[in-house]
Amino acid sequence: MDQGVVQFTDIGFGDPLRLRSGASFGPYHLRVETYGTLNAAKSNAVLVCHALNASHHVAGHYADDPKNIGWWDNMVGPGKPVDTNRFFVIGVNNLGSCFGSTGPASINPATGRPWGRDFPVVTVEDWVQAQARLADHFGIDRFAAVMGGSLGGMQALSWAIQYPERVGHCVVVASTPKLSAQNIAFNDVARQAILTDPDFHGGDYYAHGVVPKRGLRVARMIGHITYLSGDDMAEKFGRQLKGDAPRFDFGTDFEVESYLRYQGDKFSSYFDANTYLLITKALDYFDPARDHGGDLAKALAPARAQFFLTSFTTDWRFSPERSREIVKALVANRHRVSYCEIDAPHGHDAFLLDDARYHAAVRAYFERIEV
Amino acid sequence: MDQGVVQFTDIGFGDPLRLRSGASFGPYHLRVETYGTLNAAKSNAVLVCHALNASHHVAGHYADDPKNIGWWDNMVGPGKPVDTNRFFVIGVNNLGSCFGSTGPASINPATGRPWGRDFPVVTVEDWVQAQARLADHFGIDRFAAVMGGSLGGMQALSWAIQYPERVGHCVVVASTPKLSAQNIAFNDVARQAILTDPDFHGGDYYAHGVVPKRGLRVARMIGHITYLSGDDMAEKFGRQLKGDAPRFDFGTDFEVESYLRYQGDKFSSYFDANTYLLITKALDYFDPARDHGGDLAKALAPARAQFFLTSFTTDWRFSPERSREIVKALVANRHRVSYCEIDAPHGHDAFLLDDARYHAAVRAYFERIEV
Repeated sequence: MDQGVVQFTDIGFGDPLRLRSGASFGPYHLRVETYGTLNAAKSNAVLVCHALNASHHVAGHYADDPKNIGWWDNMVGPGKPVDTNRFFVIGVNNLGSCFGSTGPASINPATGRPWGRDFPVVTVEDWVQAQARLADHFGIDRFAAVMGGSLGGMQALSWAIQYPERVGHCVVVASTPKLSAQNIAFNDVARQAILTDPDFHGGDYYAHGVVPKRGLRVARMIGHITYLSGDDMAEKFGRQLKGDAPRFDFGTDFEVESYLRYQGDKFSSYFDANTYLLITKALDYFDPARDHGGDLAKALAPARAQFFLTSFTTDWRFSPERSREIVKALVANRHRVSYCEIDAPHGHDAFLLDDARYHAAVRAYFERIEV
Repeated sequence: MDQGVVQFTDIGFGDPLRLRSGASFGPYHLRVETYGTLNAAKSNAVLVCHALNASHHVAGHYADDPKNIGWWDNMVGPGKPVDTNRFFVIGVNNLGSCFGSTGPASINPATGRPWGRDFPVVTVEDWVQAQARLADHFGIDRFAAVMGGSLGGMQALSWAIQYPERVGHCVVVASTPKLSAQNIAFNDVARQAILTDPDFHGGDYYAHGVVPKRGLRVARMIGHITYLSGDDMAEKFGRQLKGDAPRFDFGTDFEVESYLRYQGDKFSSYFDANTYLLITKALDYFDPARDHGGDLAKALAPARAQFFLTSFTTDWRFSPERSREIVKALVANRHRVSYCEIDAPHGHDAFLLDDARYHAAVRAYFERIEV
């Protein structure tokens, strides 16, 4: 049973946002969904931050689209680990995304045409700033918790640094304090596939009535490989052929090819290429220790939240080692932190899956959060 | 000091080769280089098989191109681990490659135009069959050793199975008995980047006066990530920026981006896209256990060679575990096998590098080969 019927709202912000790049951007709007009820003290709010291809649609379904279930519906809802009978949960689509908030496909009022390549490069810190304004809109001074997985976990971490007094608990799942050279390399190949697609047109493909589907498809296929563990791929697909024998051509020989091509085709039919570029760039840039000579403990010193981190053993994109770096930096600051390393076969994608031990740990953590 | 000045020769074969796909192909020629002197008994020959983007040019340099040093020159030469004062070493460019042997860019005599998409899909077994004919050409009944790294190691392994009486020693470096689902996935994304490049023209780009550079470039970038270890990338590039600060655009921010793009650009300027497709397919198909119900020991039962295997700890493309599978299957057959696992930081590419322990092990092994 999912959360039930939900609705989204667009919330406008008139004042420009001052971005890390030095640019200002605005007005803009953010698309938002909420679940549960904000209590009178406004002390039970939980902000859920999304990763690369997710959105404000965290849980439930729309009345007119019952199959479109929110991306973390197994985590958020009545009686679920993040229990909406107790908590008021906010899902927000980030600035620059393509699911309803202002992004590269939105109309630039100055030109009357889509922003395209003129949409500014945004960072995790910029998103957090925009989310803080959203909290102001709801009159929420302090979140009971800010949580997210992967890139969403970076936002939660950044919240604890940027707005120490406004975060009670910081829940960081399958994340990292910064991308490795290999992580950046994968992102850059994906970007190069998009940027060099002739249908990209320098980011102004909207005007040409095309989308750089080929590039987006390859980008997604690359990404998808990094979301799964090698073991999981071996288990799911192995060397299984689609047919009875090798084809000896360049059609679809192996099941794993069929799966990845399908994922690439699907993604390229709905995701905006400029958004893909922006979001991978935000991932690459995230590095809160950078302004502190690479010292993550110094970067986390201002935090006042209590922390809960989870990682998954077979996640080779953001391995447990990366979560442990955060834990060590928190411990060095004598911040309160709980850390849970789940032995799970599903690689990075495990954070989205319904693993009993993982969900039990998150449930137990949220049960002790006072509101 | 390299091997010195070398020359290549093209050797023609009139009879068609019967391929695994069922097709026949021929006449064709192979481009070959040799180093050292074949003894009167013709018992000191070593065949070196190449991997994806290498060739017959194993060692030395050409008189008119002194900077073009052979790809395994640190391994093969006078006084080197494979000592050409003792051994007669043959390097051969495989059928379907793009460095001088008959391949997709060669003229199809039936049409007067390049083979392009009509070039047959070849397998590791087909290459080995062609190499056996090459041995016949030299009057070599039995190789003192057949050796190779990565895809070259697959050929060495296949030699030991296909021609048990013709291989004295089988030297398999950084290889695997078959690709994993993840390996195939990376190959397929690379192929998709090429196949969907508008300049690919269904493989007949020669006729259009273009090459699918964009696709080849992305393919090579993907491949390159898998050749290096994460640690090696971290050590070499880390999160080092090219400039003083983030650019906030999609230019070259990080050193690792600059390196990968350079590698992609270079590769796409000389490598044939159809060859890339063919060779990755040969990698995907290799699975000698397949005809034996998945039992590698059964597949290796006919072998009569002595075996020497080497793997590298940080190689995540063909990890030590994959070499150990081969070792176990050999031991199950009571075949003679030596195995060496080198603790090296350089990932898959380590097999091409001048690591003292690795070279000492190969040297020691070759010193005890009687000729």
